[in-house]
Amino acid sequence: MLTRVKTAVAGFMGGIMTGGSSGGAGNSSSDLPLKFPYMRPEFLGLSADEIECSADHIARPILILKETRRLPWATGYAEVINAGKSALNEDQACCEVVVARRRPMSYCPPSTPSKTPTAKRRNSLPNGEFYMSTFHLQESEGLVFHYWALFDGHAGSGAAVVASRLLQHHIACQLQAVIEILRNLHSPPPTMLGEEPDSSPYLQGNPPGPHRALTRAASLRGAAGAPSSPSSTPPPPRFYMEKKVQHESLVIGAIENAFKEMDAQLEREKQVYSISGGCTALTVVYLLGKLYVGNAGDSRAIIIRSNEIVSMSTEFTPESERQRLQFLGYMQPQLLGNEFTHLEFPRRVQRKEVGKRMLYRDFTMNGWAYKTVEDEDLKFPLIYGEGKKARVLATIGVTRGLGDHDLKVHDSNIYIKPFLSCIPEVRVYNLTQHEHGTDDVMVMGTDGLWDVLTNEEVTEAVSTFLSNCDPDDLHRYTMAAQDLVMRARGVLRDRGWRITNERLGSGDDISVFIIPLMYGNRQP
Amino acid sequence: MLTRVKTAVAGFMGGIMTGGSSGGAGNSSSDLPLKFPYMRPEFLGLSADEIECSADHIARPILILKETRRLPWATGYAEVINAGKSALNEDQACCEVVVARRRPMSYCPPSTPSKTPTAKRRNSLPNGEFYMSTFHLQESEGLVFHYWALFDGHAGSGAAVVASRLLQHHIACQLQAVIEILRNLHSPPPTMLGEEPDSSPYLQGNPPGPHRALTRAASLRGAAGAPSSPSSTPPPPRFYMEKKVQHESLVIGAIENAFKEMDAQLEREKQVYSISGGCTALTVVYLLGKLYVGNAGDSRAIIIRSNEIVSMSTEFTPESERQRLQFLGYMQPQLLGNEFTHLEFPRRVQRKEVGKRMLYRDFTMNGWAYKTVEDEDLKFPLIYGEGKKARVLATIGVTRGLGDHDLKVHDSNIYIKPFLSCIPEVRVYNLTQHEHGTDDVMVMGTDGLWDVLTNEEVTEAVSTFLSNCDPDDLHRYTMAAQDLVMRARGVLRDRGWRITNERLGSGDDISVFIIPLMYGNRQP
Repeated sequence: MLTRVKTAVAGFMGGIMTGGSSGGAGNSSSDLPLKFPYMRPEFLGLSADEIECSADHIARPILILKETRRLPWATGYAEVINAGKSALNEDQACCEVVVARRRPMSYCPPSTPSKTPTAKRRNSLPNGEFYMSTFHLQESEGLVFHYWALFDGHAGSGAAVVASRLLQHHIACQLQAVIEILRNLHSPPPTMLGEEPDSSPYLQGNPPGPHRALTRAASLRGAAGAPSSPSSTPPPPRFYMEKKVQHESLVIGAIENAFKEMDAQLEREKQVYSISGGCTALTVVYLLGKLYVGNAGDSRAIIIRSNEIVSMSTEFTPESERQRLQFLGYMQPQLLGNEFTHLEFPRRVQRKEVGKRMLYRDFTMNGWAYKTVEDEDLKFPLIYGEGKKARVLATIGVTRGLGDHDLKVHDSNIYIKPFLSCIPEVRVYNLTQHEHGTDDVMVMGTDGLWDVLTNEEVTEAVSTFLSNCDPDDLHRYTMAAQDLVMRARGVLRDRGWRITNERLGSGDDISVFIIPLMYGNRQP
Repeated sequence: MLTRVKTAVAGFMGGIMTGGSSGGAGNSSSDLPLKFPYMRPEFLGLSADEIECSADHIARPILILKETRRLPWATGYAEVINAGKSALNEDQACCEVVVARRRPMSYCPPSTPSKTPTAKRRNSLPNGEFYMSTFHLQESEGLVFHYWALFDGHAGSGAAVVASRLLQHHIACQLQAVIEILRNLHSPPPTMLGEEPDSSPYLQGNPPGPHRALTRAASLRGAAGAPSSPSSTPPPPRFYMEKKVQHESLVIGAIENAFKEMDAQLEREKQVYSISGGCTALTVVYLLGKLYVGNAGDSRAIIIRSNEIVSMSTEFTPESERQRLQFLGYMQPQLLGNEFTHLEFPRRVQRKEVGKRMLYRDFTMNGWAYKTVEDEDLKFPLIYGEGKKARVLATIGVTRGLGDHDLKVHDSNIYIKPFLSCIPEVRVYNLTQHEHGTDDVMVMGTDGLWDVLTNEEVTEAVSTFLSNCDPDDLHRYTMAAQDLVMRARGVLRDRGWRITNERLGSGDDISVFIIPLMYGNRQP
């Protein structure tokens, strides 16, 4: 049976199965060992045979959680492999309860602000050994958070596999530095660690440092007429103020820096391991009553509450980040390798069109205007194409994520990575501010889901499905996830995968979490 | 009377009146002639004596349109000078009906995409001589648009005066290139001017140019596994596509490039004229059924429709643009002159705190984290302060606008201008998609208004005022503007200007347009 499937798959996929970087975990093109073997999410508990079966590009079986297993909050999960665009399912998923333990700071690499070049360090992170299967821990042991994540790999499955095993530990590490502060909800985070709040006489005495800048600011504000707060008398020096930071901001900062550290680790470990490709990352952290949704890529999370949609992420694509990328190309033209132009045109320019006037957009523009075409404009545009076909440097269709350190423009020495950001946008949802019923959920999905179904269609499908389930059946969220993946994949007809209204189904990998929100209200 | 006022004002303002850059139009510190004399908005029709009276910082008279004068659409306008922070009212306003005439392209300087250094050109623009007092023009004469604008000057009134006289003509110039295209609503703007739509065989034949990049893109998409649209067969080359651009985008692009050209003109003309300071700019263009609201600075426009608020602009401040500015400082550290750090801290760092851990934010972060303080962190932060007190380079509290080319950090050679953007955000409101009653208006105000009144308070005040007016009284919008300025300025008590609930009134210059929207529906 397995052999037959494998043969069929190999035949169906033609050269792709043996095609190098997109086939397998990337070790075919490298003598380095794998950091982690290719896998499906640990929580599915699949055998090697089952994993192989799951890669059937013709049957495209939908994998769900076994009834004997249960994820935190009774979270539902389902996934399906693509229709042949890569041999393996390049999506990965993770769902765990994680403890950020009190440990000495040296345990984690500190996040490095951007001015310092990343030092080559050995990774000091464990490889998942503090996975927790229990929900309730003594407070003294550390800070507990719930964690769900989806990763969508490209150009190989390596980065997605590594990130799905380790990103949660980077988050735990970043949170370790602030455990005590987060616990102490009644006082704001101290500006400086190890000092009494407000006891620092930082502007009394004689600060020996950049004194001139300090007085400069005050004097300029009083004299030179720069915009200031309305007052008929010279304003008092205002630099005694101290910005107050919220607890929530520390968690956001921890998640942002965790993504950065994960990306730096991928870069370092590529020296000693084979880690192919790159991946998007969509993470949800539940901590102290709030959900923190971090997104770097084109996956999406929405909350469905009383059938209303709350958007919890933005997609980062060549179109949505066009101006950031064009600005970088304008500022650092050497990154374009004399082959690309930072200007955008509606299509390629021909040599015979030099001297004519053509529509263009610069990094400053949301609108369009005409410019006279010059030789320079014959270069390939940095951003090109529309919608799902839009590409950066004619190569990649997503502008944030992890990995891709070696990715170059084909047949050139132009690296893509400088244009990609590993930083997530983090949105916060305060669970304690709402009552949630059994049908109120968060839906997380890779782009395979959202490419074919709108937010409204997903909401309609999930709400209808859940309302027809026994509210006490803890398996209902998994069944709803399965239903959703089925609706996005469709069924195989003569002319390919079809969904309702004869639309094309998604030929991409599809992964979906459905997280019921009422469990959050029940947490301590 | 005038003399008494002048003496009182001079006494009240102390040294500011004679203090150079913030007092007067800036010619005291320069031998160059003024480009335009200081003035109040042309449409107020004030005599020189009246202008002088309007600068009474104690009485702070509210200036409104005379009953004998009328602005297009019966627009209301009111303004008041500040409580002494500068000798002159540094706000300026403009309201005109402008014609973009069919003229040879050489009439306007073409907008220059950012790769080309701005050439030093003589300005070829008229200085306002095609001001139109009539609303209805023959179509053959050109394209007519309505125009309202507010400018809030700082560090002198020069830039605001010049921009209030000329920006509309830059917009007209940019629109000239696309008059025929905008008129022809039934076909989309052509990608290339002077060609039949879709007739260009740009990918047939043998393009002698960057052929490699073209095939590279297609081949990479087929082979290297970069994210692609779902498909089980190699995707066909997709670069035959051509992006379709909307008419609306041409108007947005024209406004964006007009701001850029206005700023470039200010830079050029500072060689031969005295033009002091800089200014924010908020413009509204009504063209072919749509309102285009362009904003560069911290003024604000809202639409009030059936008592509901529609936000029509974003404020650009050190806080709202923090990450853009930090990123620039990180990419081009020489702009920080070795005196500033691109990192943000909640307060200044002291030398004795080196080695301790302090809260910080990098350009990648929305949250906060702790870092170990280094010597480098003793520099003054690029972005510093909160709310109205936030500053870029300890100098300026607004991050977009026109002018400021000479502005430097006090007592240094560090220029502010590289961190400022002259590009507006343009939002579009389609007037034809809504029915508007006599009380539906757009309110435009400088920050003097919005610093003390919320959107909701402004809406409540305007709606209540208008509902108590005779709907046929065309002066009602001016009376409503006067009422609004009065509410923001307040009344002078023992301890300064006070508004309702004993709150502090605005001591800043305040300027307000109230534009009734039903007139837009009546335009041809």
